[in-house]
Amino acid sequence: METIVSLAKRRGIIFQSSEIYGGLNGFFDYGPLGAELKRNIRNAWWEDMVHRRDDIVGLESSIIMHPRVWEASGHVEGFTDPMVDCRESKQRFRADQLFFAPVVVVGEDGAETTIGYVSALESEDTAADLQARAEDLKRKLGARGTLKPLVVADITAAHPEEIEKIPSPATGKPGSLTPPRSFNLMFETHVGALRDASSVAYLRPETAQGMFVDFKTIVDTTRVKLPFGIAQIGKSFRNEITPRNFIFCSREFEQMEMEYFIHPDADWFACHEEWLQWCRDWLISIGIPADLLSFDEHPKEKLAFYSRRTVDIMFRYPFGVQELWGIAARSDYDLKQHAKHSGKPMEIFDEATKSKVVPHVIEPAVGVDRILLAVLCSAYYEDEVEGEKRTVLRFHPRIAPYKVAVFPLLKNKPPLVERAQALYRALKRKYNVFYDESGAIGRRYRRQDEIGTPWCVTIDFDTVEKDGTFTIRDRDTLEQQRITEDQLFAMLEEKLG
Amino acid sequence: METIVSLAKRRGIIFQSSEIYGGLNGFFDYGPLGAELKRNIRNAWWEDMVHRRDDIVGLESSIIMHPRVWEASGHVEGFTDPMVDCRESKQRFRADQLFFAPVVVVGEDGAETTIGYVSALESEDTAADLQARAEDLKRKLGARGTLKPLVVADITAAHPEEIEKIPSPATGKPGSLTPPRSFNLMFETHVGALRDASSVAYLRPETAQGMFVDFKTIVDTTRVKLPFGIAQIGKSFRNEITPRNFIFCSREFEQMEMEYFIHPDADWFACHEEWLQWCRDWLISIGIPADLLSFDEHPKEKLAFYSRRTVDIMFRYPFGVQELWGIAARSDYDLKQHAKHSGKPMEIFDEATKSKVVPHVIEPAVGVDRILLAVLCSAYYEDEVEGEKRTVLRFHPRIAPYKVAVFPLLKNKPPLVERAQALYRALKRKYNVFYDESGAIGRRYRRQDEIGTPWCVTIDFDTVEKDGTFTIRDRDTLEQQRITEDQLFAMLEEKLG
Repeated sequence: METIVSLAKRRGIIFQSSEIYGGLNGFFDYGPLGAELKRNIRNAWWEDMVHRRDDIVGLESSIIMHPRVWEASGHVEGFTDPMVDCRESKQRFRADQLFFAPVVVVGEDGAETTIGYVSALESEDTAADLQARAEDLKRKLGARGTLKPLVVADITAAHPEEIEKIPSPATGKPGSLTPPRSFNLMFETHVGALRDASSVAYLRPETAQGMFVDFKTIVDTTRVKLPFGIAQIGKSFRNEITPRNFIFCSREFEQMEMEYFIHPDADWFACHEEWLQWCRDWLISIGIPADLLSFDEHPKEKLAFYSRRTVDIMFRYPFGVQELWGIAARSDYDLKQHAKHSGKPMEIFDEATKSKVVPHVIEPAVGVDRILLAVLCSAYYEDEVEGEKRTVLRFHPRIAPYKVAVFPLLKNKPPLVERAQALYRALKRKYNVFYDESGAIGRRYRRQDEIGTPWCVTIDFDTVEKDGTFTIRDRDTLEQQRITEDQLFAMLEEKLG
Repeated sequence: METIVSLAKRRGIIFQSSEIYGGLNGFFDYGPLGAELKRNIRNAWWEDMVHRRDDIVGLESSIIMHPRVWEASGHVEGFTDPMVDCRESKQRFRADQLFFAPVVVVGEDGAETTIGYVSALESEDTAADLQARAEDLKRKLGARGTLKPLVVADITAAHPEEIEKIPSPATGKPGSLTPPRSFNLMFETHVGALRDASSVAYLRPETAQGMFVDFKTIVDTTRVKLPFGIAQIGKSFRNEITPRNFIFCSREFEQMEMEYFIHPDADWFACHEEWLQWCRDWLISIGIPADLLSFDEHPKEKLAFYSRRTVDIMFRYPFGVQELWGIAARSDYDLKQHAKHSGKPMEIFDEATKSKVVPHVIEPAVGVDRILLAVLCSAYYEDEVEGEKRTVLRFHPRIAPYKVAVFPLLKNKPPLVERAQALYRALKRKYNVFYDESGAIGRRYRRQDEIGTPWCVTIDFDTVEKDGTFTIRDRDTLEQQRITEDQLFAMLEEKLG
């Protein structure tokens, strides 16, 4: 993982936001290559999801929506994490990351005495940490007997009377922690001139509600018929307490979500299965290896009451197997909630059954940043070429920032440079391409390998003096061939289509 | 304008955010056609600005940046509007939209007496409004003599002792208005668990600061050389007091900005002129008529102290000639401010002069929504075809949501439907296209005209029984021709390239 973060930084692909001011935790900027990668992922998804299908339309709803949207969706109430404050240090901790244990000593007579409590924030070795603190406490109090094995729990499991006895991880002393309290993950702001309860608004924590809120408008202004989907790409924000794993879990991120509306009597399970397959196939189509992907079905007892089934497509990141794409069967819950809260019917007239129905929905929701990280991790290879170590990003051509790099063999031979420039210009009308004339060809190849350019083209004397063909070198096979300009365009058309 | 707003609503192109909850003032959603329009504008700009040029790279920086960015840029201090509060009604007014006048009566002896003050919010007829109120006041107080012509000013011109005497527009009574106070246009939020001064953050009011803050990282990780530019497309937010003119001035909007860095000794004026021309030419290239565009040079005395020159490209909107694209010569002010505030040098090594320099910058900044509105306004036409009124959106093919609509002549003839479907599928691999088999051909044409599809293709019996050619009908000339599938693809390649 460190190698990838460091490459991303060194080549200006991804780096922390506002670095010159020390950075901002949980926010990232995408440099020239990162911006192209992101754009290619978005475009591939939109083309495949919206343009190439017959049943899906697009939407761009605003990031700030009416606050009642988030009451209806349950985000104001439910989208919370329990937090514990330390009244003395004014620090705040996520309750499920603050662990504690009573320290119990067993005397020679077998009697058990609780001599106090220890606490620790979640770390790589919370158990050992707590054990050491317990031994410390026993020594400090001069307690006799043996330490009973610690029973560790997070602070949400503490009884109210225990809270007072648990030391704050900030001060090491008990008495300053509050009981766990809900903390909303939505970023809050105020719209308009006044700043009071009436002007509160939130940055959306997901794009999905846009599709539900605009459902009726889209049904009324387009010719969609069940089943159909509404797709959206856009930024979402979650005030995560612990941003982690580079761009995997950040506070500002970009989502690609689609709500697929089906008749309430339709076979939702079959439809859900179809979307699972579609999403997996799509990931493979943009170059993510199938063997790094797996499915994770949420157990029934962990589903929200309205949810019929949720399956995540997991990706084997360097830091573990983690959720990449969630595909949920959400029943008619969201539309009915908005119908209830807005008083507006959320129905569609179904031609087949000649009746108005509230459709059910299948929701495949994925983050652009998570896909980009999966793409980056699975594209990264190190190998040896001509006795030298080579770093290569094996991006799928559709995702690669640059599609082709064009080199004149020598930069001091005007006919070569002119021909290379002409080809570069012709390619540039259609594709993002790179021109490089400095250094030995081998070095120029390696520069392109490191940023994942699939093909390099070299203009040499044969090109200008003989048949016009040039050398094309494949990033992955390292094979070199001579082809014509027409053949190059035809190949790109085929590979990038 | 109303016609356009109503068409946008009726065809689901643009509508208010969160409509089912009564809408949210200053926020808009783009429906299926609007999302495609926006996407096409963004893609055309990115391709022309970044991919087809040699000297410009892309960036996607985060919307929430370190708060010190906005101190350095001057937005925390300077980006404010003077506001007046009414202490009684708790309403807040923009000072430059709240007008007042002393009411002076001239007695028979020629003596002038100020009998009170009148006030009114800016409207289409503020002067008449104030005059009526002045006459009312005179009548109510039974003042003798003649009313002196009113001297109207906005409240920023009021003396402190006058403020107390000016009636609040909310209550009609004096005594409750505060003096004008600065109000920041940035949306504020809090990052992390704590909510205090240390966690304040802002939604960016412009994308430009991302380019300045990341300048050094981009210089260090890419091979850019002066002159070069950094381009970015993304959402920005301004808590405008009075959102107006549909999507022209909204609170959440999307910008396309580019910072073009030049050597401090370069001919900045010539560079500024070049960008003025580039931007104007680009607008024309996507279909905006040249005669609706004009230049507006900011007078020297109105420029910020660091600014050398600002020229706006103006567009004749239905509500008046308004700013569409601002092109500013901003000197080295922004980079130097960030160098000062961050302590990090903002320099680039210039090969030509073998020295480190802080470059100057030319900034063309435009809003996607404003371009979209200009495109919509200038594309709208009503004409008469075969004796019937026709509404047509004459979008440039590159911008049009659908490029081609495919019709089988009759929907109950399987060979026609099959051939039409096959063509539709083939086109859909590359372009966003529409399939329609319902209703008379004339009606299908008109549906496409209204959403701006440039070409309609009809599969008839000659297509399947004879030479395979089909009819293509041009939206603007209404001409019909027979062409082959190969010719159609070649034409699209040429027109959309």
